[in-house]
Amino acid sequence: MPSGLHFLIAAKRCEISELQQLARTSALVNALGRLIHGLQRERGLTNLHLASQGTQWEGALNDQIQDCEVLQGEVISCFEGMDVTPTRLTQGARLFSRIAYALQGLAALPALRRRLRAEKWDAPRATAAYVRLIAGLLAVIFEAADTAADPRISRHLVALFNFMQGKELTGQERATGSALFAAGQAEAAAQQRLLGLIESQERCLQVFDEFASPALQQAWQAAQRPEHMAAMERMRRVLCTAQDGAPLDRQLSQTWFDAKTSMIDAMKGIEDRLARDLLALCESRLETVSSELTAYESLINQEPDLALEAADDLSFFEQAPPAPDSPGSALNPNAAGFGLQLDRSILTLVQDQARRLQSMGQELDTVRASLNERKTIERAKGLLMAHRHLSEEEAHKTMRHMAMNQSKRLVDIAQALLSTADVLPEPPR
Amino acid sequence: MPSGLHFLIAAKRCEISELQQLARTSALVNALGRLIHGLQRERGLTNLHLASQGTQWEGALNDQIQDCEVLQGEVISCFEGMDVTPTRLTQGARLFSRIAYALQGLAALPALRRRLRAEKWDAPRATAAYVRLIAGLLAVIFEAADTAADPRISRHLVALFNFMQGKELTGQERATGSALFAAGQAEAAAQQRLLGLIESQERCLQVFDEFASPALQQAWQAAQRPEHMAAMERMRRVLCTAQDGAPLDRQLSQTWFDAKTSMIDAMKGIEDRLARDLLALCESRLETVSSELTAYESLINQEPDLALEAADDLSFFEQAPPAPDSPGSALNPNAAGFGLQLDRSILTLVQDQARRLQSMGQELDTVRASLNERKTIERAKGLLMAHRHLSEEEAHKTMRHMAMNQSKRLVDIAQALLSTADVLPEPPR
Repeated sequence: MPSGLHFLIAAKRCEISELQQLARTSALVNALGRLIHGLQRERGLTNLHLASQGTQWEGALNDQIQDCEVLQGEVISCFEGMDVTPTRLTQGARLFSRIAYALQGLAALPALRRRLRAEKWDAPRATAAYVRLIAGLLAVIFEAADTAADPRISRHLVALFNFMQGKELTGQERATGSALFAAGQAEAAAQQRLLGLIESQERCLQVFDEFASPALQQAWQAAQRPEHMAAMERMRRVLCTAQDGAPLDRQLSQTWFDAKTSMIDAMKGIEDRLARDLLALCESRLETVSSELTAYESLINQEPDLALEAADDLSFFEQAPPAPDSPGSALNPNAAGFGLQLDRSILTLVQDQARRLQSMGQELDTVRASLNERKTIERAKGLLMAHRHLSEEEAHKTMRHMAMNQSKRLVDIAQALLSTADVLPEPPR
Repeated sequence: MPSGLHFLIAAKRCEISELQQLARTSALVNALGRLIHGLQRERGLTNLHLASQGTQWEGALNDQIQDCEVLQGEVISCFEGMDVTPTRLTQGARLFSRIAYALQGLAALPALRRRLRAEKWDAPRATAAYVRLIAGLLAVIFEAADTAADPRISRHLVALFNFMQGKELTGQERATGSALFAAGQAEAAAQQRLLGLIESQERCLQVFDEFASPALQQAWQAAQRPEHMAAMERMRRVLCTAQDGAPLDRQLSQTWFDAKTSMIDAMKGIEDRLARDLLALCESRLETVSSELTAYESLINQEPDLALEAADDLSFFEQAPPAPDSPGSALNPNAAGFGLQLDRSILTLVQDQARRLQSMGQELDTVRASLNERKTIERAKGLLMAHRHLSEEEAHKTMRHMAMNQSKRLVDIAQALLSTADVLPEPPR
């Protein structure tokens, strides 16, 4: 009969394999973050170039495109270096499927660049194309956050994903506000969009704040200089409260763009730190788990003795079964009494391991709840799009209106929509 | 640049690998079910043997132990045949850790058998030992149900796990009721235990009914013969409503035991069918996904042409992004418009795949909700055990009382306990 210890060792090896994959994922996340940042700049410069009827920003835009091509090359090598043997099961299926989608977008990017210059697309249309491409890249990171099984790493990935998403929304706000000021006239639809972007941005940064380490929270606080924030909030107020059609100061377009750009660059600094911390976290967990494995493996040599001792051992039936740990103690598996002592019986090891995995699962559920909110909102949006034939933006706006009118959170509205889905007519196919 | 198609194929291979593992898991579940059934009989015969002061049932018990040893051998070969390479990541860690615990129990079983006969343990103590061993084996099946990522298979595993759990509770009810009748006198604590067992049993069978296929629901309905059910409910009423200390008809001990035994045997029939259907389901999904993979692989040969066509293709930026499907349509991935046509563009394939995986995730969340209820209750129980120094049974009873007094469901009480955990004092270590 194989002993419990053999399966304990197999379990440890699974954890190590997971952590190694996470370490590789963090390199991918890093490369994706840099490409996304580059594409955000390219989007901004494209808008300026298009707004100048192709008379300005040509050189800066071309330089940026070259930078993006280098960054894209780095992302592609990460993709190429990925382990695509079918070892990740359905987690892998979801991640690979997101990557497949992102790759289709990257493949179409050169064609996009040619077309929007040749056909002189307007800024909103160009912005929408870049938004979609970046969303496809961010979805890869979302999937990585959703599949990590180590709760501390998952917390960190959730903070990182939400921060990156918040940064992207800031980029979209920059484009929308810039275009409004440049047009010299307030427009109700763009104002609505702006309000939506500000609200979603704040939600993302709240989630970041909830899950980030105290050091990163402080870094982010420090990055938001009060004098800059005050100036920006003033411009936001002007943009959002002007009557439809009222004049706006065109001069502020550049001021707004520069203020938002310096904010986005500051965010990139925080993002880089998040990515570095992620890698460090993976490596430190890997070290801990590897030393636990070594200890288990050395135990297996002594096992014949242990087995002999156990022949008349009823402790399985006498000790308390591996009861779930109390909540909260799971934050630090090492603190949860997991100091490895070679003289403990295998049963105690088995029970510790079960307790620890259960605690991890519990902590993970908490972290995932924030990801599930996002999924719920996305699903409700998809439902509205299918049943009411709305665009993604219209669906989002409809839900935001419902939430405001009912003084509810967006996720509650989404939940309510999903739970009433059965009474909606089937969408035509 | 690798194409999206390469990652689509990798995603399909992950799905196939998952389904193959599930097919192997279903063989394990089958073997575990037979061993559990054998141990349930051994527990019953042990009680009869102990109750007769070792004067009766010796032969039947020894035969049963021999049967159990054969069944145990089959389970052990399934464990030995398991793929323990660290490919299952944290899912694997949890499953292997449960197996390690179950193996410790099986290793201690011969010692248990010797001791309880030599020391003439009383029936409750012997029952408790078998209950713990069987719980360890059932936990392996719970873990398998919790890690399956295909929603239809997961539904089926949830139905199966709950049915097996319900059968085990029926076995415990048989033992408790039998002992009460045999004692010839009602006893309040045993009556409370009986009520708890009946309630939990009904909850398990409700979940089974919610998730089982219509054919299995009908089979289970047919297995519960009204005349038998009426007789059993009458005996249950007698057992549960007699005043503490009031006399009970000792003659009914055997009648009760036989009625419960025939019920348990009927449940074994349903369970076997559940296990067979599980394997068939895995095989049919495997066939579907494999043929999708073949189609993708044949596409990759034509890809140069497709790539050429795509060179100026902006459909990535023009088609709707892969929006989540509307709820409900995910029950059958094939019905969700997934007929593979070779002439579709890769982008469409990518979008279909993303939609399908998202739908699966959504359906899976629904299925998992029922497993999460169980986990929530287990965690709250663990919390009470740690903070109030209660035994598992006392913790369960406390929660049941709270639920009854507040007219709430057990899971709501568990949730409330967990959410107030922060204000409880830390348990002593």
